[in-house]
Amino acid sequence: MDKTVGVLGGGQLGRMLVEAANLLEIKVNFCDAGRSPAKQVSNHDDHIDGSFKDAEAVQKLAATSDVVTIEIEHVNTEILEQIAGKTDVQPHWKTIRTIQDKYLQKELLKSNGVAIAPHQALSSASVEGLETAAAALGLPLMLKSRREAYDGRGNYPVRTKDDFKPALEALGGNKDLYAEQWAPFRMELAVMVVKTKDQVLSFPTVETIHENSICKLTYAPARGVSDAINKKAQELARQAVACFEGKGVFGVEMFLLEDDTLLINEIAPRPHNSGHYTIEACPVSQYEAHLRAILDLPLYAEDLQLREPAIMLNILGGAAPDSHRKVAAEALKQRRTKIHLYGKGQARKGRKMGHITVCAPTLPEAETIIQPLIDYVDQDKPQQPSTPSKPQPQPQVAVVMGSDSDLPVLRPGLDILTKFSIPHTVRITSAHRTPGWMATYASDAAAQGIRCIIAAAGGAAHLPGMAAAHTPLPVIGVPVKPSIGDGLDSLLSICNMPKGVPVATVSVNNSINAALLAVRMLGMADAGVRARYEAYMAESEREVREKDRRLAEVGSAQYAETYLGKK
Amino acid sequence: MDKTVGVLGGGQLGRMLVEAANLLEIKVNFCDAGRSPAKQVSNHDDHIDGSFKDAEAVQKLAATSDVVTIEIEHVNTEILEQIAGKTDVQPHWKTIRTIQDKYLQKELLKSNGVAIAPHQALSSASVEGLETAAAALGLPLMLKSRREAYDGRGNYPVRTKDDFKPALEALGGNKDLYAEQWAPFRMELAVMVVKTKDQVLSFPTVETIHENSICKLTYAPARGVSDAINKKAQELARQAVACFEGKGVFGVEMFLLEDDTLLINEIAPRPHNSGHYTIEACPVSQYEAHLRAILDLPLYAEDLQLREPAIMLNILGGAAPDSHRKVAAEALKQRRTKIHLYGKGQARKGRKMGHITVCAPTLPEAETIIQPLIDYVDQDKPQQPSTPSKPQPQPQVAVVMGSDSDLPVLRPGLDILTKFSIPHTVRITSAHRTPGWMATYASDAAAQGIRCIIAAAGGAAHLPGMAAAHTPLPVIGVPVKPSIGDGLDSLLSICNMPKGVPVATVSVNNSINAALLAVRMLGMADAGVRARYEAYMAESEREVREKDRRLAEVGSAQYAETYLGKK
Repeated sequence: MDKTVGVLGGGQLGRMLVEAANLLEIKVNFCDAGRSPAKQVSNHDDHIDGSFKDAEAVQKLAATSDVVTIEIEHVNTEILEQIAGKTDVQPHWKTIRTIQDKYLQKELLKSNGVAIAPHQALSSASVEGLETAAAALGLPLMLKSRREAYDGRGNYPVRTKDDFKPALEALGGNKDLYAEQWAPFRMELAVMVVKTKDQVLSFPTVETIHENSICKLTYAPARGVSDAINKKAQELARQAVACFEGKGVFGVEMFLLEDDTLLINEIAPRPHNSGHYTIEACPVSQYEAHLRAILDLPLYAEDLQLREPAIMLNILGGAAPDSHRKVAAEALKQRRTKIHLYGKGQARKGRKMGHITVCAPTLPEAETIIQPLIDYVDQDKPQQPSTPSKPQPQPQVAVVMGSDSDLPVLRPGLDILTKFSIPHTVRITSAHRTPGWMATYASDAAAQGIRCIIAAAGGAAHLPGMAAAHTPLPVIGVPVKPSIGDGLDSLLSICNMPKGVPVATVSVNNSINAALLAVRMLGMADAGVRARYEAYMAESEREVREKDRRLAEVGSAQYAETYLGKK
Repeated sequence: MDKTVGVLGGGQLGRMLVEAANLLEIKVNFCDAGRSPAKQVSNHDDHIDGSFKDAEAVQKLAATSDVVTIEIEHVNTEILEQIAGKTDVQPHWKTIRTIQDKYLQKELLKSNGVAIAPHQALSSASVEGLETAAAALGLPLMLKSRREAYDGRGNYPVRTKDDFKPALEALGGNKDLYAEQWAPFRMELAVMVVKTKDQVLSFPTVETIHENSICKLTYAPARGVSDAINKKAQELARQAVACFEGKGVFGVEMFLLEDDTLLINEIAPRPHNSGHYTIEACPVSQYEAHLRAILDLPLYAEDLQLREPAIMLNILGGAAPDSHRKVAAEALKQRRTKIHLYGKGQARKGRKMGHITVCAPTLPEAETIIQPLIDYVDQDKPQQPSTPSKPQPQPQVAVVMGSDSDLPVLRPGLDILTKFSIPHTVRITSAHRTPGWMATYASDAAAQGIRCIIAAAGGAAHLPGMAAAHTPLPVIGVPVKPSIGDGLDSLLSICNMPKGVPVATVSVNNSINAALLAVRMLGMADAGVRARYEAYMAESEREVREKDRRLAEVGSAQYAETYLGKK
């Protein structure tokens, strides 16, 4: 904490970095022109007023800094190589140099066995060069500049041979091009990785939505992605970052293909847009993690986990110079929104002017909150093919039965869930007639945001126990009275689970108690639900005491006649 | 968001205020000397370099600001009154003037019917004056300076008549004194209140721990305080703040007496130490709330609620000039800690140099994390009368039985809880032999931080159901096999609860499944617990598959002999 950090570049990433540094009294000197976004929130006399590409300016920065780092990778690595003899440069200048050239970046990953799309350098920036690459990689392919490419600049999709010329023209006669096999992804994912002196740690896997090749939205965690893929993506990202020398955070973008294969798309050797959400959503943000990594301060894997699900929406410059401030004003009208404006002054169209993060107890709640803001920023967009419908609230309880004949027994319980405003889903999944689907449904439930399962079954009554075998969530079993017998067989089938796999059993046909038990469970960590449950208990007591008052008033004979009437 | 805010004072409250303002591109001009903590994180040329008590400096500030506010109440309200004609001053200068004089503050509250301790102004700062007050209010009483008193300065406890002279001497011949009846409080609480143009909103009720009259710790929510008192305290705080003119946040400190009476202690017309926790713990912090209030920006009650429980520990200046930085370095070694250093340079003993906030899914977890830091800051303290023992982690599961004869059945379940690192407590409380204690224990469990109850019972087996009748928490019932019969009677007694009061029943003597069910429930909202459970499931599967491998290898005859051996 006593070391001074020098940063090349002073844009929004630098600004958020120094916001984290200020809290720790870590002095940060920026090398950038004028009163850039980062310098606006760091008031001292040791910033360098000059370009981060200028050798003299960078040398001045190095002279006053214990560690030099970057907030943009388009720096002059020759200068970094020079100063590295005198001061600590993190991440290593070689890492930055390799990553600057996307082709070399991919080659390094490939040589380390990291999953990437097949690619090859163009022998020449010509139709002939492209033809050779297309013969090897097939069409469509993505033509890419090796250098100075970001936010979609420097990429051109080549679908047919007719695209060859336009592609070469679009990339501006750039001589350093390479081609990449088309990755038919169903989703783009990203993981922020932290490389410390002795560990490689990762933040959660997030989903990124790009529009016109610029990041628009980040969903943490990624929607509809299983825990297994979430972990696999983090492992792949850590494996990729482990290939590079030096310390700091790295943004790893990747593709999730239709068959769940993961491929690395590209890596940034610095804090990244897809990690902004960590400021509010994680105990330690990507910015603080970067500081801790480069300064050898302690860092725990646990501190990179989500406190709450989060969605980040970029605020881009619009048609008017102040349109980004209008988006911010609109965001202030929504609950649970955190606004970050970057102090860039007047907007340029498409420039990143700020972002908004919404954290909520569940991702569906965050989606509900952010939707009006997405609608707001989309209003200037060319007409959409169809307006997407508003998302339904994410179910918290799954109510499952083996047969629709169990539905009448479950109805009173479903009414309880509705009364307590618990979002729920009702499904038919039989342990005996759809064993595979039952197993898949139970296995995936937790990743889908389900927090508890109610399962009804009669007779052999295997469904609750089988669901419990496939999920770490609590399963509540409702024994259903079969046509023959009193249902004790169902009850014992559900209750007598072997040691190791519990089912919370309620009495025969008592779906009301099953639902109330689910509400009690949800209330363990949700004060609102708990308060509603306490109100229900009080109301229930009031009802019984009212009956007692009447009974005392009118006597038991008249009470039975008047109130129990036709019973 | 387009208005410029001028702030009198530029200490840590101003620093945290401008950290919130920077995110919204709200320009803040500070009036304070030199490069004070707030100016360090706000780099522009329009700060006023001068004392916030200097008329000329304040007038210069007013000339460049749309709204003038304060981060310290010891300002010159005459100057504020003058500038209020030309610029907007929030909160109203009358409010600041009244609050500066604690006696007038109390008189205003009293005249509005707000609960406060009886008090009276001293007719003269003399033994005679004190005698008159003591005759009216009784002894002990608290002698207080009316002005310029904070962090315990200006207060003197008068226990007997022998304290009269020392008290008058200690308060330095101050002529403006008043006496307050002794409030025998069991706890100090605080609530941050936000007064907007049309609403009075409040943050949660927190517990504050003072040491040498300086705030040391804040617990959000207050420990062992019922929801009813939490709400009552917020109502009282809002009622108190509603008495004052103007907009902004107000810190309201109060006493909770033994009989649960609440009395206002004092009010600060600005962000407050007891509200620092809101930065990480609430969607909108007290600082952002202050900005939104004085600038008429939207604000929702929901955004003042807790995202997670939190504990705040002040970092005070110690013996060495850098001792506060050592505390911060120590804090970096703990997970889930957010450190805020204020940029005050070298410490003075007892000065507020920074603070640490720990947010965690439960308050007991936050307590466990922060305890080593409390120990660390306490190591320099003069020897305590007795070293308090380390607090045990707060139990999350209560395991209860009606008789100690049930303990052997529960032991395997307790081992499971220990294996999963779930803090738990084990108690004997019989529905039949200690019906009152049983009811009290179950009723209080939720407020004590218990999140789920496991109850074992045999025969009539009423304990699980009776516990469920007294708590909104989920109750898991373990039927115990009685000496006669197979335990089916116990199982049915526990399971067959009436509609409205559920018990999650497991099979006879199966305390292992009861414990695993509790772990599953805790895992619903705790990813760490969930991950441990998934590891347990995987290990359990591995064990069975290993047995299968062996069985296939050696055949069933040898397997039975070798591995089932003496069975």
